[in-house]
Amino acid sequence: MLSNHIQNGIESARLAWSRIPNSDESPFVLDDDGVGILKKNDGSAVESLDYEVIENFAYREEQAHRRRKLYVSYLLVVKWFFALLIGICTGLAAVFINISVENFAGWKYSVTFSIIQKSYVAGFIVYILINLVLVYSSVYIITQFSPAAAGSGIPEIKGYLNGVDTHGILLFRTLIGKVFGSIGSVGGGLALGKEGPLVHTGACIASLLGQGGSTKYHLNSRWFNVFKSDRDRRDLVTCGCAAGVAAAFRAPVGGVLFALEEVTSWWRSQLMWRVFFTSAIVAVVVRTAMGWCKSGKCGHFGSGGFIIWDVSDGQEDYSFAELLPMAIIGVIGGLLGALFNQLTLYITTWRRNHLHKKGNRVKIIEACLVSVLTSVISFGLPLLRKCSPCPEPDPASGIECPRPPGMYGNYVNFFCSKDNEYNDLATIFFNTQDDAIRNLFSAKTINEYSSQSLLTFLVMFYGLAVVTFGTAVPAGQFVPGIMIGSTYGRLVGMFVVKYYRKLNIEEGTYALLGAASFLGGSMRMTVSLCVIMVEITNNLKLLPLIMLVLLISKAVGDAFNDGIYEEQARLRGIPLLDSKPKYEMRNMMAKEACGSGRVVSLPRVVKVSDVVSILQSNTHNGFPVIDHTRSGEPLVIGLVLRSHLLVILQSKVDFQHSPLPSDPRTGGRSIRHDSGEFAKPVSSKGICLDDIHLTSEDLEMYIDLAPFLNPSPYIVPEDMSLTKVYNLFRQLGLRHLFVVPRPSRVLGLITRKDLLIEDAENVNTLELQATSVRIQHQNKRLTTRNPDAERPLLNGLLA
Amino acid sequence: MLSNHIQNGIESARLAWSRIPNSDESPFVLDDDGVGILKKNDGSAVESLDYEVIENFAYREEQAHRRRKLYVSYLLVVKWFFALLIGICTGLAAVFINISVENFAGWKYSVTFSIIQKSYVAGFIVYILINLVLVYSSVYIITQFSPAAAGSGIPEIKGYLNGVDTHGILLFRTLIGKVFGSIGSVGGGLALGKEGPLVHTGACIASLLGQGGSTKYHLNSRWFNVFKSDRDRRDLVTCGCAAGVAAAFRAPVGGVLFALEEVTSWWRSQLMWRVFFTSAIVAVVVRTAMGWCKSGKCGHFGSGGFIIWDVSDGQEDYSFAELLPMAIIGVIGGLLGALFNQLTLYITTWRRNHLHKKGNRVKIIEACLVSVLTSVISFGLPLLRKCSPCPEPDPASGIECPRPPGMYGNYVNFFCSKDNEYNDLATIFFNTQDDAIRNLFSAKTINEYSSQSLLTFLVMFYGLAVVTFGTAVPAGQFVPGIMIGSTYGRLVGMFVVKYYRKLNIEEGTYALLGAASFLGGSMRMTVSLCVIMVEITNNLKLLPLIMLVLLISKAVGDAFNDGIYEEQARLRGIPLLDSKPKYEMRNMMAKEACGSGRVVSLPRVVKVSDVVSILQSNTHNGFPVIDHTRSGEPLVIGLVLRSHLLVILQSKVDFQHSPLPSDPRTGGRSIRHDSGEFAKPVSSKGICLDDIHLTSEDLEMYIDLAPFLNPSPYIVPEDMSLTKVYNLFRQLGLRHLFVVPRPSRVLGLITRKDLLIEDAENVNTLELQATSVRIQHQNKRLTTRNPDAERPLLNGLLA
Repeated sequence: MLSNHIQNGIESARLAWSRIPNSDESPFVLDDDGVGILKKNDGSAVESLDYEVIENFAYREEQAHRRRKLYVSYLLVVKWFFALLIGICTGLAAVFINISVENFAGWKYSVTFSIIQKSYVAGFIVYILINLVLVYSSVYIITQFSPAAAGSGIPEIKGYLNGVDTHGILLFRTLIGKVFGSIGSVGGGLALGKEGPLVHTGACIASLLGQGGSTKYHLNSRWFNVFKSDRDRRDLVTCGCAAGVAAAFRAPVGGVLFALEEVTSWWRSQLMWRVFFTSAIVAVVVRTAMGWCKSGKCGHFGSGGFIIWDVSDGQEDYSFAELLPMAIIGVIGGLLGALFNQLTLYITTWRRNHLHKKGNRVKIIEACLVSVLTSVISFGLPLLRKCSPCPEPDPASGIECPRPPGMYGNYVNFFCSKDNEYNDLATIFFNTQDDAIRNLFSAKTINEYSSQSLLTFLVMFYGLAVVTFGTAVPAGQFVPGIMIGSTYGRLVGMFVVKYYRKLNIEEGTYALLGAASFLGGSMRMTVSLCVIMVEITNNLKLLPLIMLVLLISKAVGDAFNDGIYEEQARLRGIPLLDSKPKYEMRNMMAKEACGSGRVVSLPRVVKVSDVVSILQSNTHNGFPVIDHTRSGEPLVIGLVLRSHLLVILQSKVDFQHSPLPSDPRTGGRSIRHDSGEFAKPVSSKGICLDDIHLTSEDLEMYIDLAPFLNPSPYIVPEDMSLTKVYNLFRQLGLRHLFVVPRPSRVLGLITRKDLLIEDAENVNTLELQATSVRIQHQNKRLTTRNPDAERPLLNGLLA
Repeated sequence: MLSNHIQNGIESARLAWSRIPNSDESPFVLDDDGVGILKKNDGSAVESLDYEVIENFAYREEQAHRRRKLYVSYLLVVKWFFALLIGICTGLAAVFINISVENFAGWKYSVTFSIIQKSYVAGFIVYILINLVLVYSSVYIITQFSPAAAGSGIPEIKGYLNGVDTHGILLFRTLIGKVFGSIGSVGGGLALGKEGPLVHTGACIASLLGQGGSTKYHLNSRWFNVFKSDRDRRDLVTCGCAAGVAAAFRAPVGGVLFALEEVTSWWRSQLMWRVFFTSAIVAVVVRTAMGWCKSGKCGHFGSGGFIIWDVSDGQEDYSFAELLPMAIIGVIGGLLGALFNQLTLYITTWRRNHLHKKGNRVKIIEACLVSVLTSVISFGLPLLRKCSPCPEPDPASGIECPRPPGMYGNYVNFFCSKDNEYNDLATIFFNTQDDAIRNLFSAKTINEYSSQSLLTFLVMFYGLAVVTFGTAVPAGQFVPGIMIGSTYGRLVGMFVVKYYRKLNIEEGTYALLGAASFLGGSMRMTVSLCVIMVEITNNLKLLPLIMLVLLISKAVGDAFNDGIYEEQARLRGIPLLDSKPKYEMRNMMAKEACGSGRVVSLPRVVKVSDVVSILQSNTHNGFPVIDHTRSGEPLVIGLVLRSHLLVILQSKVDFQHSPLPSDPRTGGRSIRHDSGEFAKPVSSKGICLDDIHLTSEDLEMYIDLAPFLNPSPYIVPEDMSLTKVYNLFRQLGLRHLFVVPRPSRVLGLITRKDLLIEDAENVNTLELQATSVRIQHQNKRLTTRNPDAERPLLNGLLA
């Protein structure tokens, strides 16, 4: 049906294409467990496939089959090994960050406390200076060394897993900046957390391990370099994300669900198990390290450290009347969360347009100003607050008032005239955030905080969190969100205690619900957030309450704007493809969507100068290749990618003098490229057209594009509903899609039963109990073509 | 480009198709939150759209837009309401089953125990008789009333969610059979569980609620009948599955993950939240009911009941040396699990081919024989076992020996000569399975069981489980699996205690690991099983150990055969489409897959007699429709489904005398069908061709198929790799796919940025701050066509 030379071209394209591990067009088309890469090693077998030795095909195929089995097992082992490695490394990174932060913060507070015994002014100055130095070190690292490490990194990772590669987010320098930057910024007491950066850290570690280290710093190892396809890399990064969450919250199940719900766009259940494994490894590593630290080997780390706020001694039962205040918490969370998203959006836009244009010095000054502001507020406000007398000591709860000096705990004695007094504002403000949250969540401390203190703290901290968001330091939103939420949650809890007159209500439980509601209202996560909250509080019984609060806060927040990650991704120009099409698409056709630019197509054999001028004249990344049958009719034979054209232009080995297609049967012509050359580089931007130097002689030569084509990109008819097109594009993770005219004939219909090939064979084997028969049967399927399908269609039957 | 009358035909097809809520071809193409159904109610607006009033289009569109918003909110509320309803109903069903089973079993054991105080022979006979009556009632219900309720039901549900509708699995009678059948079979002491049936029960409840009750039993309510599309129904069934698992194990997170990992084939993250909500509701309902039952209102229910085996007082730490015996447990689990799958496969095949062909009487006799056998073994074997003396009483553990009569607990005094003796075999064998598991998992009971007893029990129970599997009663494999696994787990634990000489090792923890390993080796579930085990034992710290064991047992099992659900699904002829394509497909083309039968296509206007003869002559479910342009070239204008053709034939309203296409511009012709008519019926098999009576006059008339077409089914070129075709088919949940010749032109390329429509508009709004501008812009997009796209392609540019 197709003319012969076109058939050859398509055939050689198919063979060549199957050798390219990074089929840019179809990152998810290859099946799991690395068979995508396999083809590369099988390449030799496929390459030497000749038309004269077609009878040997079955034999070769069997040999390849055997080798394949071994190779697939090898790849499977390697993948699991990498999952293990990612888990261990991310766990260790998390432990390192936590130990460092706790030590810096602990040292800072112990120094300050020992100085304020003599002079509050001197303590104030020392406190401000220590914070300033820590924040300055963080912002210096970020601005000078790794600008991509600023912010939380989750929007960028989300974009990467959605198919948008933001430059620089997975480099080694970004990893370094993220780790040390977040130590400085969190240790320096800014209103931000280390959890978002940990997710980014996990992703960086995964990506770097997958590419075998950093190419720039010559840490590359050939041995590690097995993951070349986009899909494998994405799988690794997904593992890394889950590992980051698991490490940040010690929540392995939450980590898996976070990766599943929030981050990845494509998900296969085979991947899930590996991701889960990574998360569990992280949990083991963190647990082992914490056990090791218990003996006091880690300095100030130990009593603080990893966030895990056990509320297992909180309230267990709740009456139906309590559901109303809980619903109110949900509404507040939705409103404050949506407001937070909107404010940060405005501020980030303003910063980007006015402030950060002026260079790194402005960024450094800005971060330092925020640091001083934070220090002044967190030290100065408690000074203005009158101390309260300690409550009656309750030996059952084991909580002392005031707390012993230099320790963590409730009831901080700060600027009080008497010894048995405590400053409730200092208890939450003049503390690391982890400890503050622990104090807010704590049970059996009814009436510890006055509502004025909580309200002051809420307003101030909310303001600080908004201002801090977007400075050039690594910044997570989880912990500030929990701080804000638990403050108003505890406020509501206090009113409930007051008006419901029930003493078995614990304010700490309300604080927990408040935290969940604010995170729900801002991040709009659902299942994963729910599970994370349950895992960090270690109390499965609160699940329905957390869920109720999240349902409400997410619904309220959704009425106003998108989640913070989506907003930020949009602001940064990361075009995320939603999982569902927009409503407007129902009334549009495929043809209407495909841009206003005309389609630039290439002939099969193209002159080098034409390729260069086409690549210069537009920015398209993919070009259809058109050939003509002997009768002169045009025929689309495939898609060639800009990046592949650039590789061909650079290497020049495929240039030929003849403007005629090279025929594989005449010998001599085989693919001269290593498939690795076509793999997308991880950390560089790839080849640039300007870097390629072509002589005038080169420009007069020709390239036969047939071996470099993707011979069958997905196609849609011109008038297909855009909703359907969107689903095709999104579900299969495509990058290019051809819009073609309506077909004139249908050669066949594929239904479910046509795709159950092996099952049918299994039945054969089952019946015949002979594998040799099975192989023959299989080969028959491979070589014979369906004679009916090629017959002209019998559509005159009914006319 | 297309000739005018074809364009009209396609247009009217698009309008009509958009009205059909159940677009059989594309169950997942419509976007979420019921916009799929929406079109039906918008139908009127679309229908009255005329070419004369095209200027009104923008206004109408705006009105429809407003109504849409309201309707979408309404549907959203309805969906959440149904999720709530499913949760409550499934929870109540689970409570009902559990209370009934516990009461029957409790009554049975208390009667037997009171009789054996006098005579063991009389007790034996009474015990056998009670079991026999219970099992007989179960098998009678199944064989006479609801044959589809036999077995676990999970393979069938899995098939349904994969797109294969086994007849009868979601009927009301199946629900009834499942509930009462499993009460009988579990209460009757057979070696099976009630967890699998509960999953099926949840699915039935969801489906019945979704269709508004049973049509057959006139419980149908119009009000409920909002879910007509396949996709909505599947979403409900997914919710039901998760609810079933959540109810069976009181594991809400495990339920979600089970539905995600094991059951559904298509998953959207929007659905996840709703599924989670349902699961949490179930947890609340079950918890409330159990709280209510605590006061003794539920008879024997209360101390037993829902499986939840708290091992929180089990061991917390483990040395690295213990990992070896744990790995051995994993290997044993893999081997025994794979053997179990293979044995049950053989036995089921044999049963199907030899036994169950002979009718219901054989099935009843078989079940009764199995019941008697089970009773004899579980009563008789402990009689042969010598009693052991009680250990020293340990007041800290609170475990009495022997246990008080009529109660649940360890150390059963059965056929012992002395009072302070117990029979270790009776402790696990002569008990409900839930209690036996609790006894096996229990901590602080080192040396309670002798290894002979455990080994005897293991062999006997394994045999019973294999024999019981496949009898005509509702049967779950979870609890028997846990029984088998925990037995050999405890055995290994005993050896560890003996040889490692560590007294802080708890045999109960090893029993738990054994249970996980056997389930992993048989069912091959991973994440969900892990989470379920953690949730039922309420001990998060064991997660890494459970995961290790599962990893090993699944890997070992996979070396031999598929998971039990896949094996059973294949045996029952449910063609499940795997999520990844078979390796063989890489070397095949689309054309080779599409069967040997020739494509039967219809012209646009077709004679009724031709339709009838085509429908009679083959069994295809979809037919391409071909029209001709004015120049005589054929053009594929869409796909028509057999079921829709049957509806048209039955109603006859669309028959016309003229063999010419009806033109919507001449008026008179509009779609005379209610879209509901084309919706796929839930519980009946649909219209049969033989039921349609056509007069000879009817047969001479014509039908214009244009309004009934799916105007743009997905298409693939003939030589596309079958791997790619498979992915397209599987990911989008298709039923039919057209294989067409290679296109001759590319009209456009769609890339990511072309699909980010609304985002671009949002930017506009943001910049202009005027919604009116936005609407105009939007409408412009809807009405104007891209002029470039229709120009002939400039592919001569470079030739």
